Amino acid sequence: MIINIITIIISLLLGDRVSLARAITLIESKNDKHQMEAALLMDYITNNINRKDNSFSNGMTLRLGVAGPPGAGKSTFIEALGKQLITKCNLRVAVLAVDPTSHISGGSILGDKTRMEFLSRNSNAYVRASPTRGVLGGIAEYTSDIILLCEAAQYDVVIVESVGLGQSEVDIDKVVDMSVLLIPPGAGDSLQASKKGIMEAADIVIINKADGEQLPIAQKTKADYAGAMHFIRQKNKDWHTPVLMISSKKAEGLEQVEQHIRDFHRIMINNHKFLEKRKKQILIGLHDQLGRITINDIYKNSTIIKKFNNISNILDKGKSVSIRKEAFSLFDDYKKSHN
Amino acid sequence: MIINIITIIISLLLGDRVSLARAITLIESKNDKHQMEAALLMDYITNNINRKDNSFSNGMTLRLGVAGPPGAGKSTFIEALGKQLITKCNLRVAVLAVDPTSHISGGSILGDKTRMEFLSRNSNAYVRASPTRGVLGGIAEYTSDIILLCEAAQYDVVIVESVGLGQSEVDIDKVVDMSVLLIPPGAGDSLQASKKGIMEAADIVIINKADGEQLPIAQKTKADYAGAMHFIRQKNKDWHTPVLMISSKKAEGLEQVEQHIRDFHRIMINNHKFLEKRKKQILIGLHDQLGRITINDIYKNSTIIKKFNNISNILDKGKSVSIRKEAFSLFDDYKKSHN
Repeated sequence: MIINIITIIISLLLGDRVSLARAITLIESKNDKHQMEAALLMDYITNNINRKDNSFSNGMTLRLGVAGPPGAGKSTFIEALGKQLITKCNLRVAVLAVDPTSHISGGSILGDKTRMEFLSRNSNAYVRASPTRGVLGGIAEYTSDIILLCEAAQYDVVIVESVGLGQSEVDIDKVVDMSVLLIPPGAGDSLQASKKGIMEAADIVIINKADGEQLPIAQKTKADYAGAMHFIRQKNKDWHTPVLMISSKKAEGLEQVEQHIRDFHRIMINNHKFLEKRKKQILIGLHDQLGRITINDIYKNSTIIKKFNNISNILDKGKSVSIRKEAFSLFDDYKKSHN
Repeated sequence: MIINIITIIISLLLGDRVSLARAITLIESKNDKHQMEAALLMDYITNNINRKDNSFSNGMTLRLGVAGPPGAGKSTFIEALGKQLITKCNLRVAVLAVDPTSHISGGSILGDKTRMEFLSRNSNAYVRASPTRGVLGGIAEYTSDIILLCEAAQYDVVIVESVGLGQSEVDIDKVVDMSVLLIPPGAGDSLQASKKGIMEAADIVIINKADGEQLPIAQKTKADYAGAMHFIRQKNKDWHTPVLMISSKKAEGLEQVEQHIRDFHRIMINNHKFLEKRKKQILIGLHDQLGRITINDIYKNSTIIKKFNNISNILDKGKSVSIRKEAFSLFDDYKKSHN
């Protein structure tokens, strides 16, 4: 087992994609033996890998979240941005799709790989579609570890593609340094308060598909979002979230996006918010993980299982129970079971 | 305090809307005194109120979830369906909007009440927009209790409007008997796997806004969804999720929706799935509530707070920690703190 892990670590550090893939599979496995190996692996990585040598800027990697509704063109955008970062900036780029967002089309499922043709073939890129179907906890549980593995494997930029529209999207900001909100043309017409949380979490808003017939619609959407930004609480005092317009298909506007990403990265490093955010993310991740361990433990606790069976019998007899009252009583029993 | 609660309960049982509103405010309050009053209130309601006397069908209330993306016309649909149930079926209808989905339009916020004109004025209806901005846990934490209160206040049908598109929506089925998925015309063009979970949770799919220029688009969307349903795992062996088409604005197709709701209700009561689902919901609600209580307790535990401060100091020194390893160690400390 140890030999196996050492082999993975050595090849991983050399930037080997196959070893990176094996390490990620280990992290995502529910198998107990794999979980132990994963713990060893992550322990080694967190204690020994301190990459300060990469070329992105100021010796610091960048974790970039890309969120947006279905149809915003997230894959096409990531393909275009990734290509730009690799070919023009000489960087190594890893892409993690938390949700595969595979299309149902004619009964066949098209994966992300086929939609990111350049990145899936280029030796300086790594694309991984996570099999988890966007469970809320899923983002925090594995993504942080997988990002660390990518960075250990010498990727300078890790792009994390997030699930569809909704609250869960805000969560992506829990694991990345910077969040991009990608919007299709026309989406500004029904700007709703339900999107406020997402807009507040965004560091850049980008209107995609600003080409051809959609150009005037994209321009209006950009104006709508720029207007709405006035109602949004500013995320960082040193950074005004810009609203940009691009065409991923025509690769137009990408230099501007890249420049804003660099500016944000530099400003956040200089005002010390960059490492402060990463530190907070570790503490939040620790809280979340502790919560998950505890809840798993509750479900396996024999006293609790017995009590739940009792309540189930009471309900079968057509009687009601007060959830508030019973939950507190169960919690007391759980605590007592540790004595 | 007791007098206060008794007064609320008596008026509530008589169907008084002001008392219902006061009771819901109590349930949603974070104030410790209010929480105690809420526990007393819910204890009385769950132990003493067993409504078997309402007129909906077979002496059983109906809890109806309405989910759908922004722009599907959820409020207009609920207004039209509620009006139908009150005026044609002589029922009392309560509407709970878990997310206010207020529109940002010209800087002003329009609440749900102004969008459900008939329901907010009719004496057999009660409309409540919950102030919580759709935290995932929020649905389960309060909505179950609020539904019980509405039923105690003699409402036959409780309609729960859910938040936008995404995973959290699937959750609505945790607290209702039946889930309606409302879809705007044109949404079928990009039917994605990310929507699969939502479609699997739906008991009826309704294409709304099938009127005027949108009629042909709605017809195509209906066909798209009907086709996609073949790829979806059937939720109940006794019920095929129908795909319907309506115009809430013109009140067309609502009789058909009402008939399907009645059919589902009758079939599920007859095959005993109806009460079985409610029982499961109580057990899941209890698990969730127990989890929340435990996590709150962890955050307040002095040993854990101290350990977190230590880890925070380690991180400040620029060192790394392994989340997996530390979380298990923290959990051990938490358990030991109960001895």
